[in-house]
Amino acid sequence: MRKKHGGNIYKVAREKGVKAESLIDFSANINPLGYSTRFKKSFASIDNIILNYPDQDAGELIGALAEYHGLAEENFLTGNGSTEFIYLLPGIIRPKSVLIVAPAFTEYEQSYQRAKGVVFYFSTKEKDNFAVHAKDLLDELKRGYSALYICNPVNPTGVLTSKDTLQEVFTFAQKKGTNVILDETFIDFHEDQSLKAGVKNYDNLYVLRSMTKFFGLPGIRAGYMISHPKNIEKIREKQEPWSTNALAQRAGVESLRDASYIQKTIQYIKEARKAFLAELKKLPHLTIFPTQTNFMLLKLKDSAPLNAHELYEKLLEKSIIIRTCEDFQGLNDRFFRIAVKKKNENKKLASELKKILS
Amino acid sequence: MRKKHGGNIYKVAREKGVKAESLIDFSANINPLGYSTRFKKSFASIDNIILNYPDQDAGELIGALAEYHGLAEENFLTGNGSTEFIYLLPGIIRPKSVLIVAPAFTEYEQSYQRAKGVVFYFSTKEKDNFAVHAKDLLDELKRGYSALYICNPVNPTGVLTSKDTLQEVFTFAQKKGTNVILDETFIDFHEDQSLKAGVKNYDNLYVLRSMTKFFGLPGIRAGYMISHPKNIEKIREKQEPWSTNALAQRAGVESLRDASYIQKTIQYIKEARKAFLAELKKLPHLTIFPTQTNFMLLKLKDSAPLNAHELYEKLLEKSIIIRTCEDFQGLNDRFFRIAVKKKNENKKLASELKKILS
Repeated sequence: MRKKHGGNIYKVAREKGVKAESLIDFSANINPLGYSTRFKKSFASIDNIILNYPDQDAGELIGALAEYHGLAEENFLTGNGSTEFIYLLPGIIRPKSVLIVAPAFTEYEQSYQRAKGVVFYFSTKEKDNFAVHAKDLLDELKRGYSALYICNPVNPTGVLTSKDTLQEVFTFAQKKGTNVILDETFIDFHEDQSLKAGVKNYDNLYVLRSMTKFFGLPGIRAGYMISHPKNIEKIREKQEPWSTNALAQRAGVESLRDASYIQKTIQYIKEARKAFLAELKKLPHLTIFPTQTNFMLLKLKDSAPLNAHELYEKLLEKSIIIRTCEDFQGLNDRFFRIAVKKKNENKKLASELKKILS
Repeated sequence: MRKKHGGNIYKVAREKGVKAESLIDFSANINPLGYSTRFKKSFASIDNIILNYPDQDAGELIGALAEYHGLAEENFLTGNGSTEFIYLLPGIIRPKSVLIVAPAFTEYEQSYQRAKGVVFYFSTKEKDNFAVHAKDLLDELKRGYSALYICNPVNPTGVLTSKDTLQEVFTFAQKKGTNVILDETFIDFHEDQSLKAGVKNYDNLYVLRSMTKFFGLPGIRAGYMISHPKNIEKIREKQEPWSTNALAQRAGVESLRDASYIQKTIQYIKEARKAFLAELKKLPHLTIFPTQTNFMLLKLKDSAPLNAHELYEKLLEKSIIIRTCEDFQGLNDRFFRIAVKKKNENKKLASELKKILS
């Protein structure tokens, strides 16, 4: 069976017998402003996009990425979502032992069903608000792992680890010969905290990036990897041809060049999150974990009259979808994750939660 | 390095310093009528397509496929082009030895770079017009292979093997415990010759299908597999989530239901091919191999003043791209492949060929 994910509105709609568009989906962490206005304006027709094979080299998109990140084109490879790289990496790194900083995106482990590496977890703690403590992680890394998977900011906790702390972890991993797979699919809100520049000098760093969330493009699968040119070449050799479709390439190029949309998104999420949190903090029976991205983790306290699955069902009656988190390592059926969406949608969820929890 | 493919107009355009749209691409075998008129009419906006994650189950597309082919939904799995399945299969079948009927699509072998199976070729012969002779193939299969890769109609030769002949091969393979990977990505012109119904009763048949060529959707990656539900389940477990993007799913559904477009396409290719062949047959120094699909293989005779690569360069000066075939097992630098395109485009190529070869 496939792992569970947020954003499965079609399945929910089928089960509920309603139209997908009628659902308010807080389970997927997608930009509430939609996709780039620059792309929207430039988009004339799907004809050219559909009728030719995609550029195998994704030349224009790679160029736009290099410019956007201030790195060389040789540092980039695009794919059918960043998930493609999660699935390619075990075959490239062939690690004997893998350490995953948990809770974490469930596909990291899932991808090792194909490979032989043994998976271990380094669990961050609820009492620390799931912060990543460098000292403890370094202690664990001393055991010697072939690969470390770490997400920043963390899905599903929303925790942002500082660049300095991650740099310390990375430097140590480098010494120990540990490959670091750094999932930065939600870093766009804090681009200055990205560790991407490390790929210029080191070949044990694989940075996963996505255009799905910040750039609002989940339907068309646009992800990429930043790494040392040596690694990029190795992965390209194993990659299927045409893995990045032509619409993803087109949308990616325009989105990266849409500076005002990027600025507007950062501003909107900051404001909407603040207002949303203010509403949520008024509610009883809820622990809200600090977040620095466009989603947040919440916990139903023991005093709450229901668990997360029951809450999911109650909210679904109101056409609202949340992401329960019982399948994340270290979490249980009291936890759920919600996206920061449009201000009126956030209000609607807060108000429904109030009715249920009061 | 990646294998070479037709349809790489963006790369050619970059190298030549021209716009991709200015090129006439005979190297990719795409429906010259474009994509489904029903899809074209129904397409209102990319908004809903972009802004949600694709349906992980591709429910509507699977339903449309089952209806179109008269098989159960459980027999289908969609992917990021049929190439995704070519790359997943080695990890599923884990064959010790693989027999590929050649010449063949170069990705079959390429996909075994990831796996341990040893690859052998069964070469069809130029003097037989590359026909697949069942008796010889059965003799070879007696040696015992874990998997047989066979394409029908064959890319790049255009040869259509009859359903009866393939059934004989399949029945023998079934007895020998050989998995059969049957690539039917160009069978849409002869749907009655498909072996797809075999998946109802047998679990050693994997039929690869594509919506890229017949349905004119190369840019957005729409492929699928037909097999026994047991195999479909196994492959689904190894597949990345969201591998089929939302635009491919939408276009797929509408295209399959566009009966008049399907009929028109078959009729158009039949007529255009006939007229194209009549022109080509007038030219000196060319051997034209019989074809029953929307492309054809040609050979420059020893008497010709140039080889296929030189011909490619000469035609490129006229903004025409052909597919040279030196990288196909069993072919060499005298062979090239061309698609049947719009009638005026075919005329243009025939006329340029005449100038070069006369």
